[in-house]
Amino acid sequence: MKTFQITRPDETIREALTDKINNLTKPKGSLGTLEELALQIGLIQQTLTPTLKCPQNIIFAADHGIVDEGVSLSPKEITWQQISNFLHGGAGVNFLCRQHGFELKIVDAGVDYDLPYDRGIINMKVRKSSRNYLHEAAMTEEEMDLCIDRGAEIVRRCHAEGCNVLSLGEMGIGNTSSSSMWMTCFTRIPLEQCVGAGSGLDNAGIRHKYSVLQRALDNYQGDGSVRDLIRYFGGLEMVMAVGAMLQAAELKMIILVDGFIMTNCILAASRLYPEVMHYAIFGHQGDETGHKLLLDAMGAKPLLNLGLRLGEGTGAICSYPIVDSAVRMINEMDNFAHASITKYF
Amino acid sequence: MKTFQITRPDETIREALTDKINNLTKPKGSLGTLEELALQIGLIQQTLTPTLKCPQNIIFAADHGIVDEGVSLSPKEITWQQISNFLHGGAGVNFLCRQHGFELKIVDAGVDYDLPYDRGIINMKVRKSSRNYLHEAAMTEEEMDLCIDRGAEIVRRCHAEGCNVLSLGEMGIGNTSSSSMWMTCFTRIPLEQCVGAGSGLDNAGIRHKYSVLQRALDNYQGDGSVRDLIRYFGGLEMVMAVGAMLQAAELKMIILVDGFIMTNCILAASRLYPEVMHYAIFGHQGDETGHKLLLDAMGAKPLLNLGLRLGEGTGAICSYPIVDSAVRMINEMDNFAHASITKYF
Repeated sequence: MKTFQITRPDETIREALTDKINNLTKPKGSLGTLEELALQIGLIQQTLTPTLKCPQNIIFAADHGIVDEGVSLSPKEITWQQISNFLHGGAGVNFLCRQHGFELKIVDAGVDYDLPYDRGIINMKVRKSSRNYLHEAAMTEEEMDLCIDRGAEIVRRCHAEGCNVLSLGEMGIGNTSSSSMWMTCFTRIPLEQCVGAGSGLDNAGIRHKYSVLQRALDNYQGDGSVRDLIRYFGGLEMVMAVGAMLQAAELKMIILVDGFIMTNCILAASRLYPEVMHYAIFGHQGDETGHKLLLDAMGAKPLLNLGLRLGEGTGAICSYPIVDSAVRMINEMDNFAHASITKYF
Repeated sequence: MKTFQITRPDETIREALTDKINNLTKPKGSLGTLEELALQIGLIQQTLTPTLKCPQNIIFAADHGIVDEGVSLSPKEITWQQISNFLHGGAGVNFLCRQHGFELKIVDAGVDYDLPYDRGIINMKVRKSSRNYLHEAAMTEEEMDLCIDRGAEIVRRCHAEGCNVLSLGEMGIGNTSSSSMWMTCFTRIPLEQCVGAGSGLDNAGIRHKYSVLQRALDNYQGDGSVRDLIRYFGGLEMVMAVGAMLQAAELKMIILVDGFIMTNCILAASRLYPEVMHYAIFGHQGDETGHKLLLDAMGAKPLLNLGLRLGEGTGAICSYPIVDSAVRMINEMDNFAHASITKYF
C-alpha cells in the first residue's frame, strides 16, 4: 500500500484569515457556519482568497458477499442497474451534479457484473464482489492495498484535471452492513446502535441484519489492527474511497463527506492518518441509524440534515452551495473600512 | 387595507404527485426533505412539472422608534449605511444573490434618512421611522394599511416580471425588538423567552432590552386584535413584508422565509390569513433566542441551521438550492419503469 504524506495545514495564516473574516460588513460571527468554512478552506489552501475549482463527485461501486445472508432489502443486481441509471443521467446523483456543476466519475471497484467500460465507467475492479465476512475476510491484504492504491490513482487524475474539491459517494447493495462493522470496531459503540434500515428494512429485517453482523463479529479471529479490520469487514468500494480520501488530503484537496457509509470511510481513513480530518467537510446527516451517533463521536457537525439516505454522494453535493457561499463570502464581501460603515460590534 | 383571496392549494393533484415522486429511481422516501418540497411546490403550482422562475430577494428597510431606548447594540445609522453597502454589492446578501441568480430589490419602507432613490432603491417610505412603542403606537392604522398595500404592490411587480419564488428579508436596527413583541403577543410564549441578542448584545444588554419591552407590553392599552398588535408594535418594514407575503400567497408564489424577523412576519400574516402558510418554505433556523421556539410553535421545519443571524434574506437565499434540487428531482429523475430497474421497496 502506498504511504501518504498528510500534514495538518500550517496555522500561521489563521490570524490573518480570522481578521479578514471579522472585518467583513456584518456583525462578528453573524454568518455562522460560513465563517467557519471560510477559515477551514483558507487554512487548507493557505490563502486569504480561496477558490473552488472543477468540483467532482466520484461514485465507487462494488458488491458485498455478506448480501448472501439477507442483510439487505434490495437485491444485489440493483448495484449494476443503478450504475446503468447513472450513465443515462436519470439517478439522484445526476440532477445534483448538473445543478451544481460537478463532473461525475463512476468507478467500478468490485461490481459482480460485466459492466460496459466503453461507456465511461472507470474500470478499477479488484474482484467481483467482496467475500462474505460471516465466514472469511472480505478481501486479502493484497486486494485491500489494490483498493487503496486505485482510489488514490483516481484522485490524482481528478487533481491533474484541475479539481480541488471532491465529493465522494458509493453504490453497493450491502454497504451499510460493512459500515456498521467499521463503526463498532473503530468507535467501540455497541453494534446494535450501529445497525439500521439501509435501503428500507423493517424492524424484523433490521433484527436479522444485526444478528448476522453480530455473528460475523463473534467469528472474527484477526489481530484487531486498523488494517485488518478495514480489510476483514470492508467493502471494496469503501476501501477505495479510503484511498481516495487519503490521496485528496495529501494533495490538500477539500473532501466533502456524504452519508453514513462515507462517514465510516473517513473514520477508517483517520485511523490510518488522523490528519485527514483537517480536509474533511461533513455534508449531511442522514437518517440511517447510527449516523448521528457516529458524527457526534467524531465531533463532526454536518452542514445539512435533510433526511436523505440515498448515498451516491447526494448529501455531499447538496451541501456544496454552502461551501461555495463561504468562499464567495471571504472573496466578495466588502470590509468596514472600505465600505465606510460604522463597525458595530 | 387591501383584502386578499388566499386559498389552500387544491388537493386533487396530491395523489398523482405522490405517485410520481415514489416512482423515481430511489428507495421510497430516500430523498427526504426534497420529496416533501417537491410535493408542496407541485401543490402550489398545481402541476407534476413545477418550475422556479426569476427568483427575487426583497429587502424591506426601516428604522424603529424603540431604538431610542437603547435596545440595540448597533446605532440607527447602520440601517442606511447598510443600504448603501447593498447598492455597492458588498454586503452578505449581494454575494448570495449573485451565487443563486436572485434579483435584489431594496425597498425603503421607513428609513430615517434621505436615501438616493435614483440609484435603484424603491421608495415606498411611509414615514421616517416608526414611533416609539414604549409610549405610543408604532404607526397609525392608515400607515399600517399603506405598508400592507405597498408590500403587495412590490410583489405584484415581481410577479409581472415573471417571478414565482420570493425570498423576503429586512434591514432595520431595532427589528428584533418588534419581532419579540409580535411573537409574545401572537403565541403567548412569555416575552422573556422571545428576547435575544439581536446584532450582538451581551447579557446585561439583553436584560435591559427585555425590561424596556416588558414595560412597553405593560403600557399597551389597545384592543388586542391582530391588526392592532401588528400596528402597535410593528416595524414599517415588517408590516410591508406581511403585505408582500399575503400578496405572494394570493398569486400562488413560493415564499422563502428567512430568520427570526421574517418568521414573525409570516406568523402575523397567518393570523390575518391562515392559508398563507401553505405557500411558505422556512429557509433557516437562526441563532436568535426564540427563533427555534417560534418555529416549533408554528410546526415549521427550516431547511438549514447554519447559525446565521444577519437578516437581509441571507438564510432564505442560502436554502434556495435545496428548493431547486426538489424541483429538479421531480422533473429530471428517471422512474423505475423507464429505467428498467427492479423496484426495491
